[in-house]
Order: sequence, then structure tokens, then C-alpha cells
Amino acid sequence: MPVVHVYVWTGFSEEAKRKVIKGITEVFSRMGVPAEAVEVLIHEVPKEGWGVGGEPASEKLKHVKPP
Amino acid sequence: MPVVHVYVWTGFSEEAKRKVIKGITEVFSRMGVPAEAVEVLIHEVPKEGWGVGGEPASEKLKHVKPP
Amino acid sequence: MPVVHVYVWTGFSEEAKRKVIKGITEVFSRMGVPAEAVEVLIHEVPKEGWGVGGEPASEKLKHVKPP
Amino acid sequence: MPVVHVYVWTGFSEEAKRKVIKGITEVFSRMGVPAEAVEVLIHEVPKEGWGVGGEPASEKLKHVKPP
Amino acid sequence: MPVVHVYVWTGFSEEAKRKVIKGITEVFSRMGVPAEAVEVLIHEVPKEGWGVGGEPASEKLKHVKPP
Amino acid sequence: MPVVHVYVWTGFSEEAKRKVIKGITEVFSRMGVPAEAVEVLIHEVPKEGWGVGGEPASEKLKHVKPP
Repeated sequence: MPVVHVYVWTGFSEEAKRKVIKGITEVFSRMGVPAEAVEVLIHEVPKEGWGVGGEPASEKLKHVKPP
Repeated sequence: MPVVHVYVWTGFSEEAKRKVIKGITEVFSRMGVPAEAVEVLIHEVPKEGWGVGGEPASEKLKHVKPP
Repeated sequence: MPVVHVYVWTGFSEEAKRKVIKGITEVFSRMGVPAEAVEVLIHEVPKEGWGVGGEPASEKLKHVKPP
Repeated sequence: MPVVHVYVWTGFSEEAKRKVIKGITEVFSRMGVPAEAVEVLIHEVPKEGWGVGGEPASEKLKHVKPP
Repeated sequence: MPVVHVYVWTGFSEEAKRKVIKGITEVFSRMGVPAEAVEVLIHEVPKEGWGVGGEPASEKLKHVKPP
Repeated sequence: MPVVHVYVWTGFSEEAKRKVIKGITEVFSRMGVPAEAVEVLIHEVPKEGWGVGGEPASEKLKHVKPP
């Protein structure tokens, strides 16, 4: 406890993944949860399979890049 | 609100994804939800990792293709 | 195939759920997928556990109601 | 982008939810992602339906409480 | 590793949950995965929010009960 | 009913997937659920996107391999 699933666009860098894992774990450890109990799973979804407002992000947000 | 996760077999075409994103968003906008508030994430799962009735779809449903 | 998970705020009416189930299933059947193969699971999340922009929807979107 | 699903034991306080929403959003905004783009959904799972090592947490971790 | 999310209809008994947790953990431990590494989360979804073939299970499968 | 999502590290073999699908389906059929009603979806997550204790499994559990 807890289990955290993070969904981001494909292309999220390894460095960004590391920061997300560290940062989210710290959110819980600051609340008294042992870091060892925190599992964070990062899932990459291609922008053409991620819809916002009825359109794929590959079109609607063509120029936005994942960190 | 809402967030929708769609799981399909790997091989779902880009055109099919576009239809799913548009169609699901419209289901909600017909109910008065602003289209901008609808997020649709499409996840592809290989048929050998999708089990039905105890067998992978890659065997049991060998001849069925995703749209 | 497919399996669809829909996340909405708690308070989504039974009539709204019925429309979501019917509407999403039709999106796939219009694409040639047999309706019987479509599973739609609707999950209700209380607004105080749904964050947008760093705040719970119970505050940030206090006056917005689910359909 | 991103969408974050957090699974915790039932009984997670409203104050704890608020901290999780704020903290996880900040992890992404520190990386340059606009806070408005971050959605965090917190799901509570009763301890008797959360298994660790083959046993429900309601037994194995009987004396541990969610924050 | 692994994390397993199980979705069932609301009304799944505590005894049934215990069997699912034990049984799924054993599937992995028979493969050499340490039982302690297996997390199983059981989520109950009300039948009126679970659609099959375009209809809620509360109607289509009215007489079927969860174990 | 049920739908089961299994998250494992990338590299899980096809034989291992087959065992997971068969084994989890049997857990439910032993409880009286028809095997045909059980769907098992296996998702592979790269070890660098799977955090335990604040670190990616690609570092913390560098020498552990999926079955």
C-alpha cells in the first residue's frame, strides 16, 4: 500500500521516470508510509491513442512533448 | 471527468483509435459533459497476453483480427 | 475484446450508466466488433479523491454535478 | 497528461487525499507539466480485498492503519 | 512484481476474496515468484455499472450471483 | 465477470503468460465461475518504469529476472 499507476505519453525519458518514481514515493513517505511499501508503475501510451476533447493528442497537441 | 481506459488487442489501427476516441467522447457530450473534459486512453495488449476461457486469444481466437 | 474502464464522479445516475454502456458498446459494434464482446466497467470516484490542477474536484469544481 | 490512479486502503482520510493530490501534481509541475493537465484519481480498496503474500491485509497487516 | 487488479461484481464474499488472493498468489509462487512480492487488489463494481453486450449486468444477467 | 489485469515486468515469457492465464482462470472456475467468463489481461511494464521504495526496479532489483 499504496500502488500508483501513472499514465503518460510515450517518449517520457528515463530521467523523467526516475523523478516521478522518487517524487511520488516521497509524497507518501512524508505522510508516514514506509517508502518500501510504495509501488509506482509508469505506463506509456502513444499520443495517437490518447484522446482529449474527441481528438488524438498526436493532432490536437502536436507540438507538446513529454518531459 | 470522465477518464476512460480502453483495452484492445495490439494491431488496432490508427483510424480505429480515432473512431474510438471520437465516438466515446460523443457518448459523454450527448449527456451534457463538455468534450474537453473527456480523456480516452487506448492500451494495446498482445493477443498472447489476453486470456479468454483460460487460453491466450492468440490461440483461441487465432483468426479474429482487431479492427 | 475490448474491455473499457470508465471513471466518473460518484453520483453518476443509473440512467447515465445505462447510456454510457449502450453508447460505448455501439462505438465498437459500428466498427464490426460483436456487441457481446464489449465489456464496460463504470467506476465511481468521490470528488474529494479526484484531483485536477492539484486540488480535489470537491472544491475546485464544487458546483459541477455528474450527469 | 498525465493521469494518475492511486490505490490505497479504505479509510484514507480526506486530509491525506488532499496531500496526495497536491503532492503528486507538484511532482509533475516541477518537471514543467502544467498543473491543470494533471489528473489524480484515488481509489480506496478495503483491506480484506487487498492481498499481500497470499493473505488479505485485514489479517496480515491487521494493526497497520492508512494515514 | 506482480500487481494484480481483479474486478468482480459487488457482493463477492469475504471468503471468495480470500480464495482469490490465495489462489492467484499461488499461481505466481509455483512459477518461482516469492509470494511476498505478489499484490492482489480486488475491486467490486455494482452490476448496474458493468455492461456486457450493451446492457447492464443487473438486467442481462439478473439471476447470476457473484460467488 | 471477472476481469483481471496483471502487471509484470517486460520480458515475461510467452510460456509464463500462458501459465498465468490458465492458473488465474482456474482459481475462478474452482469457485463455480464459468471459465469462459474470465478475462485475463497481462501488461508488461519496463523495469525502469516500475518503482519500488523510490527507485526503479532496473536498479534496485537489477539482478532479478521475470519468469
